[in-house]
Amino acid sequence: MKFKIDRSSFYEVLSELSRSISAKAEPQIMNGIKMTAHSEGVTLIVSNHLFFVEKTIPLEAKGQLTVYETGSVVVPAKYLVELVKKLPGELTVELIGQHKLSIKTEEISVVLSSFDVEAYPNTPVLDLGKGVQIPGPLLNEMISQTAFAASSIDTRPVLTGLLVTLQENKIICAATNSHRLAMRESEIEIDIEGSYIIPLASVKEFMRLFNSSKDLITVYICGNHLVFKTLNLAMYTRLIEGNYPNLNSLIPAHPKTLITVQTSKLLKGIDRASLFNRESRNNNVKLELINGSTLKITSYSPDLGKIEETQQIIDVYGEKELSLSLNSIFLIEALKAFTEEEVTLNYSGSMRPILIKPNSNKRHLHLISPVRG
Amino acid sequence: MKFKIDRSSFYEVLSELSRSISAKAEPQIMNGIKMTAHSEGVTLIVSNHLFFVEKTIPLEAKGQLTVYETGSVVVPAKYLVELVKKLPGELTVELIGQHKLSIKTEEISVVLSSFDVEAYPNTPVLDLGKGVQIPGPLLNEMISQTAFAASSIDTRPVLTGLLVTLQENKIICAATNSHRLAMRESEIEIDIEGSYIIPLASVKEFMRLFNSSKDLITVYICGNHLVFKTLNLAMYTRLIEGNYPNLNSLIPAHPKTLITVQTSKLLKGIDRASLFNRESRNNNVKLELINGSTLKITSYSPDLGKIEETQQIIDVYGEKELSLSLNSIFLIEALKAFTEEEVTLNYSGSMRPILIKPNSNKRHLHLISPVRG
Repeated sequence: MKFKIDRSSFYEVLSELSRSISAKAEPQIMNGIKMTAHSEGVTLIVSNHLFFVEKTIPLEAKGQLTVYETGSVVVPAKYLVELVKKLPGELTVELIGQHKLSIKTEEISVVLSSFDVEAYPNTPVLDLGKGVQIPGPLLNEMISQTAFAASSIDTRPVLTGLLVTLQENKIICAATNSHRLAMRESEIEIDIEGSYIIPLASVKEFMRLFNSSKDLITVYICGNHLVFKTLNLAMYTRLIEGNYPNLNSLIPAHPKTLITVQTSKLLKGIDRASLFNRESRNNNVKLELINGSTLKITSYSPDLGKIEETQQIIDVYGEKELSLSLNSIFLIEALKAFTEEEVTLNYSGSMRPILIKPNSNKRHLHLISPVRG
Repeated sequence: MKFKIDRSSFYEVLSELSRSISAKAEPQIMNGIKMTAHSEGVTLIVSNHLFFVEKTIPLEAKGQLTVYETGSVVVPAKYLVELVKKLPGELTVELIGQHKLSIKTEEISVVLSSFDVEAYPNTPVLDLGKGVQIPGPLLNEMISQTAFAASSIDTRPVLTGLLVTLQENKIICAATNSHRLAMRESEIEIDIEGSYIIPLASVKEFMRLFNSSKDLITVYICGNHLVFKTLNLAMYTRLIEGNYPNLNSLIPAHPKTLITVQTSKLLKGIDRASLFNRESRNNNVKLELINGSTLKITSYSPDLGKIEETQQIIDVYGEKELSLSLNSIFLIEALKAFTEEEVTLNYSGSMRPILIKPNSNKRHLHLISPVRG
């Protein structure tokens, strides 16, 4: 293996991928990054027990990459990244014998010990077949609006993932921890149907890696793997097996009271109120509708003090007075997910979940179960 | 106590001062910030066992502060800062009874539990007297060029501080951990003479607080305290007692070989070479002068690999070949302290300390003891 590469483009890719490696991966070789020089460029792979990520630096990047000899090597990612960061100009990268990687510039010569390339786990060979194409910004938005609602406790493993459903030319992202639920759907042409549960750790990596993706992202399903792919970047993740609960049955159909509020104003109020309960037993904040015109937000901590705020509401339909307590973190995260200026709180009775959605968008909703105030 | 204040200017000062409070100060009241409203403004104080910091928001800041009632209160700094950060517009701050601070805006009402103001330690009453005035940028530069060389191990307490010497219209900052030494002096008109050892923790707080100070900083000595003061900000720190070693006797007077190099180029080379020894037993990097024209930098880690670099030197006087090993971290920190483009390494023989200084500046030097290579 031998190639010459521009330091900046090499560093950019290395630093992006190396962040997918957990700090103390076991065995040691899982701290490695696999580099393969081939006829079309240099492909870099990092992986763990859940996913693997593959990025290719194509030969087309003229003047930035020349491959002299094909071959593969696995080297400690952390040191390679820091080294390339500190090296100037153009680098000649070459495998020497079985276990030494040489990196050279005019004045500098580095030899880096490498792992046994045969010992690196084979990434699954996947037959990609038909895929679903989704604009990158849309997929990123849908996932970031829902994934946070998944469970962080693995007593019910299916709830620790993001549910992606492809059906009837729709894609639906949803997540719940059984106390709150987030759902977002979008119309899209689909060639495949089915429901898939992506582990939250993979979802987070997806958001980091594809965050700036302006292009189409193609989603493939292949056995127990789901694949996100753009031209030079691919992420393959295992799926969580099991039956996801039926979410549609949870959504209240006939709310009694609709309260329309300014999204950002309510968010700021809840954020302030949440300050005092951060270190107490609960994260509860109390909301009261007063006289059909005002929303009062209160929270109280016996040690720290009390905060009380009144906000004018935009519109109300139904009851004029009501009171409920909600987990402020759930409410903050739900409100942050909306891009709309106004949202409606749909109230169906005490101890029934509150449905939050914009008036203008029927494809995005959050559901939060109240707590005893 | 009652005053009205613009949220932004209040937040700025609170957030600056609250960072001087250590995360888990004991007793609890030491997590507090003391606010005093008086006829000239509002003064905020934070303190610990080493130093106290006092900042005044003056009444002159027109429209930003109005004092209605004088008085004092101590409230938990962390909550006050986060609260003021999240509140909008103009705040009315008022002490209610003995132990409740009320903060109000039109729509929001907060009550914050306060500490017993009598229980807050009295800051020492200092008779400031004569002081030495030093331009802020100069004092900051001198301290940042030397303080890092102090010892982090407290077997010899005097070495864990920065030595500030005022004599013969000079101010000298110096620090050593007995393996390296940093010294910087500057001409300045002085009214007081003496040597003072400032604890490193106080030095770090000084650098954070006065970092952006473009004005004159006045230094006062008052008993066992040293005071840094600008118009509205003052920091009072205890001094370390004891005799500091005589530093001038350590500086080699007649070096055998002078090697002039480009500061930033050598720094980059040492920084690269240090990559591999970061996790090994030592931080050593080997420097070799070859043929009176080239400097070879090498470092080696049995596990990771080897890095080797050659740099042209600018000038050499004395021997044509020599070899020495230095702690790369000490060398990196010393080189970073120079603003000059070129520095000279003064070599006095194997196992004698290396003196590093710019040709153009006789008032700034670093000394590093070699290690066995």
